[in-house]
Amino acid sequence: MKIAVVAPSCSLRPEAAEAVTAIAAMRGDAEIVIHPQCFLSDGHFAGPDAARLDALRAAMADDQYDAIWFARGGYGSNRIAEATVANLPAAARAKTYLGYSDAGFLLAAFHKAGLEVAHGPLVQDVMRRDGETAIHRALDWLVRRDERSLEPGLKPGQPAMAFNLTVLSHLLGTAIEPDFSGVELLIEDVAEHEYRIDRTMFHVTGSPAIRQVSALRMGRMSEIPDNDPVFGSDAESIVRDWCKRAKIVFGGRAEIGHDAANCVVPFNYRAN
Amino acid sequence: MKIAVVAPSCSLRPEAAEAVTAIAAMRGDAEIVIHPQCFLSDGHFAGPDAARLDALRAAMADDQYDAIWFARGGYGSNRIAEATVANLPAAARAKTYLGYSDAGFLLAAFHKAGLEVAHGPLVQDVMRRDGETAIHRALDWLVRRDERSLEPGLKPGQPAMAFNLTVLSHLLGTAIEPDFSGVELLIEDVAEHEYRIDRTMFHVTGSPAIRQVSALRMGRMSEIPDNDPVFGSDAESIVRDWCKRAKIVFGGRAEIGHDAANCVVPFNYRAN
Repeated sequence: MKIAVVAPSCSLRPEAAEAVTAIAAMRGDAEIVIHPQCFLSDGHFAGPDAARLDALRAAMADDQYDAIWFARGGYGSNRIAEATVANLPAAARAKTYLGYSDAGFLLAAFHKAGLEVAHGPLVQDVMRRDGETAIHRALDWLVRRDERSLEPGLKPGQPAMAFNLTVLSHLLGTAIEPDFSGVELLIEDVAEHEYRIDRTMFHVTGSPAIRQVSALRMGRMSEIPDNDPVFGSDAESIVRDWCKRAKIVFGGRAEIGHDAANCVVPFNYRAN
Repeated sequence: MKIAVVAPSCSLRPEAAEAVTAIAAMRGDAEIVIHPQCFLSDGHFAGPDAARLDALRAAMADDQYDAIWFARGGYGSNRIAEATVANLPAAARAKTYLGYSDAGFLLAAFHKAGLEVAHGPLVQDVMRRDGETAIHRALDWLVRRDERSLEPGLKPGQPAMAFNLTVLSHLLGTAIEPDFSGVELLIEDVAEHEYRIDRTMFHVTGSPAIRQVSALRMGRMSEIPDNDPVFGSDAESIVRDWCKRAKIVFGGRAEIGHDAANCVVPFNYRAN
């Protein structure tokens, strides 16, 4: 299997690229091709919008790749998401796309365009503690659809989606919003204050489109900065409260988050 | 004129209440009645949702008040906004409502419900440097509709709205979203990173409802934390860029922001 790595948001650290390429070579079941765009830098981004868009579009149109793996999150894929799915070549439809965090903007746009996407580890996750396990989990799923890579609560035949909560909030109402009807929605977040989690849950659960989900499950909310004053409610209570107000079924916890244990959530999960 | 002060978000500092009451007494043209709810504290909020809702609803239903002035921003008015406008008593329709920042959730909901609202200084703004000027500006407008209090770019007969950008982003698609058609939209923000301003502008200008505004003007974006790495674009360039992409007319700058120079923006401005 041949996997292209592009960076639609922030640039990839060279040592991460080397480490993941080495893991794939050691496994022998996948060839990782790191697009040079991953190392561009233009302010916050891995190169200007045009360079990120061109690299992604070129990889999507290239028949030799079976999958496209997003290098890293951060911020910026929303700036090119709508343009990326315009006039898709046939080769783009024969691939799998994997990533999470800021890449959620692309997961949404691509899923809406009929492409096969999954929430799961990014290449730069290799730098996390126990990061190699995340890389193997991603490759096990990309190469042979290993079910052990999947978020354990997924049910075959039940459509699911997973998003960073803040990213989800920012794509609602835009041209890349997908159809949430009947979908089990998994959310996670990182480094957001409790008052921000509360405000974002107000926004997300206030959307009539989101209220069409079959259930909502909560992944990890990590690195929450101190609230001043103490907020008075923890992240799970906040999520439960807004689900209750919006009459959305709270389905419990989910094994996703900004960490090495982050599991794979294919947006159209079918049994093998 | 009799003005009730309530705190639908965070609690008011007693010294701010004293200072503003003293200013009004010295002027002799307004009596400020600080509701005791303003000093409640429940975690992040000025009392539990029920206490904030009850105080606000009671003041709205009370014939003796000509205006309701929001004490302070922070976070939390969204949690009671929808309930506040249910089954409005007639007395609520004979009042003016003034505030900004987090109170924007109420400005949106109240304006949608047909009430007379204005973006402008909060009571606790008296604590800012030159804060007394903000208080006089607010009272000059509340008491005698002094046009010198108004944002100088407003045009009589041209409907305008003003919002904190982040608050605006979080009310889009919810039950309290007002109708933006033909409205001149003024935005401001505080303490948001440039990448967050960019992401929020993506979200806001990606809304088909927002694309119905007649123009967008940008107030101050203050206390912007350092972006790591340097973002590569400043706040005005970001706002201009997203307006251009969304084919929204950028109408220049606006005299609003989280500071003592923050001007009044009545949502239905008519010439005196």
